[in-house]
Amino acid sequence: MSFDLEAYLTERRRAVDEALERHLPPADAYPPVIHEAMRYSMFAGGKRLRPILVIAGTEAVGGQMADVMPTACAFELIHTYSLIHDDLPAMDDDDFRRGRPTSHKVFGEAVAILAGDALLTHAFALVAANAALGKAPLDAFPRVLAEIAEAAGTAGMIGGQVVDVESEGRTVPTETLEYIHTRKTGALIRAALRAGGILAGASDAALAALTGYGERLGLTFQIVDDILDVEGSLETLGKTAGSDRRKRKVTYPDHHGLAASKARAAALTREAHAALGPLGAAGAPLAALADFVLNRKA
Amino acid sequence: MSFDLEAYLTERRRAVDEALERHLPPADAYPPVIHEAMRYSMFAGGKRLRPILVIAGTEAVGGQMADVMPTACAFELIHTYSLIHDDLPAMDDDDFRRGRPTSHKVFGEAVAILAGDALLTHAFALVAANAALGKAPLDAFPRVLAEIAEAAGTAGMIGGQVVDVESEGRTVPTETLEYIHTRKTGALIRAALRAGGILAGASDAALAALTGYGERLGLTFQIVDDILDVEGSLETLGKTAGSDRRKRKVTYPDHHGLAASKARAAALTREAHAALGPLGAAGAPLAALADFVLNRKA
Repeated sequence: MSFDLEAYLTERRRAVDEALERHLPPADAYPPVIHEAMRYSMFAGGKRLRPILVIAGTEAVGGQMADVMPTACAFELIHTYSLIHDDLPAMDDDDFRRGRPTSHKVFGEAVAILAGDALLTHAFALVAANAALGKAPLDAFPRVLAEIAEAAGTAGMIGGQVVDVESEGRTVPTETLEYIHTRKTGALIRAALRAGGILAGASDAALAALTGYGERLGLTFQIVDDILDVEGSLETLGKTAGSDRRKRKVTYPDHHGLAASKARAAALTREAHAALGPLGAAGAPLAALADFVLNRKA
Repeated sequence: MSFDLEAYLTERRRAVDEALERHLPPADAYPPVIHEAMRYSMFAGGKRLRPILVIAGTEAVGGQMADVMPTACAFELIHTYSLIHDDLPAMDDDDFRRGRPTSHKVFGEAVAILAGDALLTHAFALVAANAALGKAPLDAFPRVLAEIAEAAGTAGMIGGQVVDVESEGRTVPTETLEYIHTRKTGALIRAALRAGGILAGASDAALAALTGYGERLGLTFQIVDDILDVEGSLETLGKTAGSDRRKRKVTYPDHHGLAASKARAAALTREAHAALGPLGAAGAPLAALADFVLNRKA
């Protein structure tokens, strides 16, 4: 494939970072500590995968990046809030994230909890800000709102985190592992693609293509995450390799072995490619993104 | 005044409770622990003041209770999430709320944090559900969404909580006390009234009346809360009287004395009545509500 994914990602990452800078309250707005904490976690070198999926989703069905940017940012805020809360002592009790001290180590637990709450809350303000752009049909916004709230809620990300926390140190059936994986990261990835599609007025067929692609991509992402945790190093991951095992987290390789995990991730990526069929040539960036998620080393 | 506030409140409280029952995920939905925790805190004998203000706000400008009910419920979810997180050991470290053990005492800290997150997230799903009723103009929903997110965010409730937590045990200027009081509870009360108005297509003048009323009501509510904390008892409050003082919280009576606090609450209530002028007879329930908030004993 001749598609230059690296240039594609670099350009969109830069646009997302600029938009986040504009769409977050200034660090010195009163009370400053909460805005500093929000920004500390938001600008910690994230890959911006979820916003890029909103953008790629909309572009794949004829939409424009600028017209979905606030919603794209909203997904990164929600992802970041979930990391701050997951890292808390009462949850995963992590001291480092992306190679830096976690929010509660820097700002204390109270501010870390509130910074997570604030990012989640502000994400929904950004959906409203997207409507104010006047670029998408008004009826798209209740739909996008419902998609985001469901994906981030107890039927999605929070549900996955609850079961993950409850399963630590226990032997769980494979269905429980699948539940955690499809909900904890998969739901938001799927919703990001769908939100991009909905805001561009995608047809039912196009939206189904984005959905099918998104479901495979989300599961691939999580399986690769588990594999990297076994194989990766602190240097490339920014966190201690093997930390899932030490915390006795439920992982795909534990259930299926490393070789089968890699084979499954590759098979899912092929399925993700196939799901893009109805989108034609416009699906090329998404196809390249799927390969990137499969082959990433961090 | 011949208006029967008790009947008015009882009827609306019952309707809100029924709607909350319908709009929350069932307690046995997987994973059950999070849904049990959400319901444990939602059905703990709250006054449902904020949902009633959404309803009273919409009725005061010609709207119907049924047409705003999901949004009314959303405010109660947000209020309840804030209580769960405020009670956490890292924040106010409260063991009791409304006479019952707090969420983290019953479900543990991890589930309590996630239950708060889930209620906040689901609140926004209910705004989308309100749009799906098809009763309000579609452009009302981005507006209501922006109002709620701003009132619940760092310019509102979270900002107030941050400054409150930071001010504990310290001597703060009166402006800081005012900041905490107008943000921590006032912002959401104001937004509840405005949301009810916006969903009914209120005129600018009517919305300004609701806003002016809401700002006085919110501040009265908080001053009375502080007074009750000095004067109340465990029996009527469901929490230990004097707990603000023990925790060295910043209170209105500390800054201004008990007599001046009572005088200020009464003056604000008169101002709240006056603000309702443009609404005419339709403002009677709100006027009675202001007296109720002033004279409440718990």
